[in-house]
Amino acid sequence: MSAVDPPITAVREAVTRALIEDLEPLGDVTSALLPPGQQATAAFVAREEGVVAGGSCALETFRQVDPDVEIQWRVDDGAAVDPGTEIGRVIGSLASILIAERTALNFLCHLSGVASYTRRFVRAAHGDARIWDTRKTTPGLRALEKAAVRAGGGRNHRGNLSEWVLLKDNHIAGMGITEAVARARERWPARTVQVEADTLAQVDEALAADADIVLLDNMTPEQVATAVQKRGGARRPLLEVSGGVTLQTVSRYAGTGVDLISVGALTHSAPILDIGLDIVEVR
Amino acid sequence: MSAVDPPITAVREAVTRALIEDLEPLGDVTSALLPPGQQATAAFVAREEGVVAGGSCALETFRQVDPDVEIQWRVDDGAAVDPGTEIGRVIGSLASILIAERTALNFLCHLSGVASYTRRFVRAAHGDARIWDTRKTTPGLRALEKAAVRAGGGRNHRGNLSEWVLLKDNHIAGMGITEAVARARERWPARTVQVEADTLAQVDEALAADADIVLLDNMTPEQVATAVQKRGGARRPLLEVSGGVTLQTVSRYAGTGVDLISVGALTHSAPILDIGLDIVEVR
Amino acid sequence: MSAVDPPITAVREAVTRALIEDLEPLGDVTSALLPPGQQATAAFVAREEGVVAGGSCALETFRQVDPDVEIQWRVDDGAAVDPGTEIGRVIGSLASILIAERTALNFLCHLSGVASYTRRFVRAAHGDARIWDTRKTTPGLRALEKAAVRAGGGRNHRGNLSEWVLLKDNHIAGMGITEAVARARERWPARTVQVEADTLAQVDEALAADADIVLLDNMTPEQVATAVQKRGGARRPLLEVSGGVTLQTVSRYAGTGVDLISVGALTHSAPILDIGLDIVEVR
Amino acid sequence: MSAVDPPITAVREAVTRALIEDLEPLGDVTSALLPPGQQATAAFVAREEGVVAGGSCALETFRQVDPDVEIQWRVDDGAAVDPGTEIGRVIGSLASILIAERTALNFLCHLSGVASYTRRFVRAAHGDARIWDTRKTTPGLRALEKAAVRAGGGRNHRGNLSEWVLLKDNHIAGMGITEAVARARERWPARTVQVEADTLAQVDEALAADADIVLLDNMTPEQVATAVQKRGGARRPLLEVSGGVTLQTVSRYAGTGVDLISVGALTHSAPILDIGLDIVEVR
Amino acid sequence: MSAVDPPITAVREAVTRALIEDLEPLGDVTSALLPPGQQATAAFVAREEGVVAGGSCALETFRQVDPDVEIQWRVDDGAAVDPGTEIGRVIGSLASILIAERTALNFLCHLSGVASYTRRFVRAAHGDARIWDTRKTTPGLRALEKAAVRAGGGRNHRGNLSEWVLLKDNHIAGMGITEAVARARERWPARTVQVEADTLAQVDEALAADADIVLLDNMTPEQVATAVQKRGGARRPLLEVSGGVTLQTVSRYAGTGVDLISVGALTHSAPILDIGLDIVEVR
Amino acid sequence: MSAVDPPITAVREAVTRALIEDLEPLGDVTSALLPPGQQATAAFVAREEGVVAGGSCALETFRQVDPDVEIQWRVDDGAAVDPGTEIGRVIGSLASILIAERTALNFLCHLSGVASYTRRFVRAAHGDARIWDTRKTTPGLRALEKAAVRAGGGRNHRGNLSEWVLLKDNHIAGMGITEAVARARERWPARTVQVEADTLAQVDEALAADADIVLLDNMTPEQVATAVQKRGGARRPLLEVSGGVTLQTVSRYAGTGVDLISVGALTHSAPILDIGLDIVEVR
Repeated sequence: MSAVDPPITAVREAVTRALIEDLEPLGDVTSALLPPGQQATAAFVAREEGVVAGGSCALETFRQVDPDVEIQWRVDDGAAVDPGTEIGRVIGSLASILIAERTALNFLCHLSGVASYTRRFVRAAHGDARIWDTRKTTPGLRALEKAAVRAGGGRNHRGNLSEWVLLKDNHIAGMGITEAVARARERWPARTVQVEADTLAQVDEALAADADIVLLDNMTPEQVATAVQKRGGARRPLLEVSGGVTLQTVSRYAGTGVDLISVGALTHSAPILDIGLDIVEVR
Repeated sequence: MSAVDPPITAVREAVTRALIEDLEPLGDVTSALLPPGQQATAAFVAREEGVVAGGSCALETFRQVDPDVEIQWRVDDGAAVDPGTEIGRVIGSLASILIAERTALNFLCHLSGVASYTRRFVRAAHGDARIWDTRKTTPGLRALEKAAVRAGGGRNHRGNLSEWVLLKDNHIAGMGITEAVARARERWPARTVQVEADTLAQVDEALAADADIVLLDNMTPEQVATAVQKRGGARRPLLEVSGGVTLQTVSRYAGTGVDLISVGALTHSAPILDIGLDIVEVR
Repeated sequence: MSAVDPPITAVREAVTRALIEDLEPLGDVTSALLPPGQQATAAFVAREEGVVAGGSCALETFRQVDPDVEIQWRVDDGAAVDPGTEIGRVIGSLASILIAERTALNFLCHLSGVASYTRRFVRAAHGDARIWDTRKTTPGLRALEKAAVRAGGGRNHRGNLSEWVLLKDNHIAGMGITEAVARARERWPARTVQVEADTLAQVDEALAADADIVLLDNMTPEQVATAVQKRGGARRPLLEVSGGVTLQTVSRYAGTGVDLISVGALTHSAPILDIGLDIVEVR
Repeated sequence: MSAVDPPITAVREAVTRALIEDLEPLGDVTSALLPPGQQATAAFVAREEGVVAGGSCALETFRQVDPDVEIQWRVDDGAAVDPGTEIGRVIGSLASILIAERTALNFLCHLSGVASYTRRFVRAAHGDARIWDTRKTTPGLRALEKAAVRAGGGRNHRGNLSEWVLLKDNHIAGMGITEAVARARERWPARTVQVEADTLAQVDEALAADADIVLLDNMTPEQVATAVQKRGGARRPLLEVSGGVTLQTVSRYAGTGVDLISVGALTHSAPILDIGLDIVEVR
Repeated sequence: MSAVDPPITAVREAVTRALIEDLEPLGDVTSALLPPGQQATAAFVAREEGVVAGGSCALETFRQVDPDVEIQWRVDDGAAVDPGTEIGRVIGSLASILIAERTALNFLCHLSGVASYTRRFVRAAHGDARIWDTRKTTPGLRALEKAAVRAGGGRNHRGNLSEWVLLKDNHIAGMGITEAVARARERWPARTVQVEADTLAQVDEALAADADIVLLDNMTPEQVATAVQKRGGARRPLLEVSGGVTLQTVSRYAGTGVDLISVGALTHSAPILDIGLDIVEVR
Repeated sequence: MSAVDPPITAVREAVTRALIEDLEPLGDVTSALLPPGQQATAAFVAREEGVVAGGSCALETFRQVDPDVEIQWRVDDGAAVDPGTEIGRVIGSLASILIAERTALNFLCHLSGVASYTRRFVRAAHGDARIWDTRKTTPGLRALEKAAVRAGGGRNHRGNLSEWVLLKDNHIAGMGITEAVARARERWPARTVQVEADTLAQVDEALAADADIVLLDNMTPEQVATAVQKRGGARRPLLEVSGGVTLQTVSRYAGTGVDLISVGALTHSAPILDIGLDIVEVR
């Protein structure tokens, strides 16, 4: 267990599901044609620069397909790779390796894609602000994708609707921010209470209401800078920029002194990291 | 059931899983603060041009959250939308709508993203060749993503390792293509037998071996054109281009007379289609 | 959806599981002896004073057993009942009612037991401090039991290990509270950071470290009062009493000015609330 | 497999479910802050006198969280412990131990609570009658709780509606006990047929009807003694007392010569047995 | 709920599983070619004489595929059909009907096969002895197959290892039947205790031991008749013939006065009942 | 992985399900009476001639019940056995062996029954035509039964509705075979397209339409021979006989020169292969 590992329960369940969808009902009709007994060594190799994530899923895939396949894993989640870096290798039945290959790669490439895309935003922010994710994740893969964001150096916004309170306009309508925050604190003591502000006037109200974090929704860098000034030297609330931030615009937002920048694209639109499985030897 | 619908079993299971990951253990701690009894109308609205897919998932999400929410769906999977097009609307408890919102959108935006990206490749191929997908899908979502490819006008390569035989170099090693195809036909009669060819010499061998389809792996458009000529006027085998085809290069490949172009990016790297849920009215 | 409702996904899954364990493999061998077609009306009646919870589970049980059973539910979760109060009634096939009876009651009695026991602590605290639960829940029923605590007027501590940071001595060892809190904030921005303090010296350190909440572990009311004084007029951190608080001692702790008192017994040792299902009429 | 072990299938499934509810979506956000590589030894220690049950669940929890944790288990289910008795110890990654701790304890404390409470009833009955459980179990945990009753020296009433016939007034209405028993024997040969008797007149009828066991519902010890006399020296039917028997009243019922006393509270209202996990060493 | 119905939980789960295995990942690639909107009426028609079972599975299949398909069911489980008897009809989308057809028929033909085969044994026994099943069921379908045996007029032996005690030679070794039965009664009061007897000497011992039922294993009709005489006029124990009884030999065994004849073939080797789905009309 | 192995995911899931249905809620009440610590050796022995299948399910059953049971497996799936052939042996806890026995045998006898019945058809066809299965499988066991057919020397027709296109009269109505095949090819490129022909006129049309395989439905051997002649020397389409072929008639059909004969009875009506588990030694 390190800070970037996904929960093992989520890994096991996702791998089982993925294998079922790739194998049933007949199994791998092609590997069934191989001569019995063939052994092989194969290496996971990065084809491009990026950050690895999803290693535990790749390993679990081989374990579930064939516990006799030996796995030598070299690159931990969160580590950077270059084109040609060998991430790990598997040694065992050729048929087992071919059966597990695509499922293992689908996890590894997708989650490394999330980590790598996160790293690019993190770098573009120059350490001036934290990059974090959203609930805009691929259905069924939230736990894994949020771990991949951590592997890429990002942070996790709330994991789901249960983790903290995020008051948007529809929640606030008819009572105002101050009343809404108070009500949230009364109902859910000690839990993070966040307020979405669409205007600078709402920022004032949220500051006064003692929210833990204020989401600055779709504001310009200038508006964000003004919000930061309004907070002044106080440690709280945290200020988050949200809405359409891109690799092009992230440094301008980060430079405002805001604490956090949320980027839905980390999980909903990251291209994969290209990783292949090279057969090194067949015996 | 239309040609673009995913299996209902896959829809139900994926939606249940997605709701569990967004709601447990405490449910939506924010909606719990709403005054009881509030009703609302909300509209799914496209924010950009594209093709819709995942409608059945969005509907199922509301059904599972609250069967009393009325759904008026206007845009079928596979239809094009422009910025501002209303895709459907939901009418019922405000809390239910807010609870279902993100899960429904995560399906709709991701799958419409796949459909829209597919449509761009289909258009770029000018009808000269079919675009189809690969097994490089997001783990756990294969059935839904393959349906989204169909919604975008693409075709489906084999659904999984069970559906047809695809002989790659490791399967062929030590027996040659002719022998491998014969063995496949003997074991798996009537099932599609596909051969991967890395060189034009292998194309010759695959043609002679009476494969149903030949995958031309990482060839240039010129090599592909040569392969098409080798086949001549015969209806079979089908010829597929595979390997790194992009929106920039797809038309050159399509122009060679090849039948099919597979694009892993359709499912592994499609950005979402931006769709939002606008609250139209709260009562 | 009200603040006391459990997530519908948890309700459905728990009810299905409970019915399977009561019915398989042969079904109800006794109801199978009833003459076909008998209809009945039956009433859920409280046998003692308390607070109702688990209504959604009872309803879901009948829905899953037989959707044709009509349900008239009268008492919402969170409402008080006296001996003889009719909580709801079911009208339909006698066999279906007898099949569902025990499963529905097991949910209703257990969860109402949790709510009722919570209410007793809430009352004993005279509104001077909030009562909340712990992670000491019955395995598999956390979402339902935490909702029952809310129904009883209690509050929910973190729902699970994922929701917030709770630093105990083993986490702090070798770095100190200040460093540990800073590290938690760096890794998990905006997420609640709680510190366990076993001594008043640790309380000082936790106050200085700007924790969101401090758990006063196994302290006497006098020690707790001292900790409250140390905080002075500041709004933060919240102070929580934890460890062996009983119905006898809760008011003394509540009187110290502490904010929250956690009681594991709410979920791990609450006796059931006695509720029965009376057959009102058989037709 | 001993007489007190629960089915392994139930253990595995319950543990997986419990870990999911404690860990997802983000895993243990606190353990993620630990320095990597820390090893520890921890001991499960009883804090009070009682009987242990649920050992297989505790072990399975560590196995699922981290198969590399070494487990040294010392006290079998069914054995008595005193305050300070070490039940078992775990040696391995500190993070893994902290992640598994609460789930393992929730099983162990709850099930040991059931076993310990059962033992108290068994002792109070002085061996004059057997104590057994009911179907009033915690939803989803029936197999585990029934095993815990066995560990406490109790016996198991029918496991569910499928196991034997229990004729209550609504089943008998309109045909009488004799006819109902005959019908049950005709439909379900060799299966236990039990009759509920609310009056001594019904006891006469049940004796005449050759039931396998008669449930004496809510009778006084005097009425029970009369029923025992009515049976005289015959080996059958067995006679069971049911309804509101407490630790205070159980010996009076047991003294009547009745065979079995059912106590719903064994499973629906047993307080936990207090067991803790002490960190013995961190390396 | 009638005596022949399987538990609804088992029906729902089995149908979901069967649909997944027939539909994923791509759905019905053939029905996808139908013109949209076609409606049809189709009839389930018996092609041979037999007894229907599995109706609830067939209905559930259509409900899960498409809740808008109207179902008119005419023949209850347990009823006899002749070639040409219409069992039920479905009215709705042609595509939905074709998608559900094979799954519904697989349940209906298999379970009606079990019921019909049971009926043949029941008839051949001329009412002289009851026919019942064994635990030799198809894995995953026990609840459904045991219900089908009931539909065919048979009875159910124990549903699984949990329901009653069946002492075979390995259980008895080293203690003798008397001791083993006493031990079983001590551990599992009121639960059926059955003893397997391989010889007439063991029958004597089992009679003396007061077993509830004695299994006469692989005995000739003459040996069985002797065992029946040994029991004399006593109502107990029941006597069961087991081992290789066929349609040819069943009447000779039934004529001995034995109570029950178990036939593993009812569930492990019954041929299907041929039932087809005829499209009556397409609109 | 050999050509006859079922997917490991299907094996694991089916075994878990089967164990749950045989063991819950109380476990094996009889084995619980055994003296603790007894060890045994037991052998799986064929009682009749046939072909083994389901070995991986039998092994997985023991693994799930008790990983400490040692398994020595001697006969691979697909191998022939005679009465008395020892298929494998298990060495370990007697209780574990008795608990796993029936579940392991239910898989082994059923699947070996399918393989053995398949072998009989294969032999009766004298190698003149291939025997293959249908979708008429036992619900929930398709993957395992299709593997058993392969073990018996048969081939697999499409695994489910997703794998290939099979155009029947209702699909063709209103457009004709030629149009239907073209449409199928357009929608589902490279996927097998099969046409059902009820008459020789339809055979002509299917030949002209360039189907991959034609199903000759319920034709006489003479009609089949005519169809074979119509195809002449062409390699395609494959011709399949379907409908009511029995062990008596299969050789006549095979002699016509047809390629494939489908037999639903392989999976829906195969009697079990009688295999027993003999306790060799108890220690």
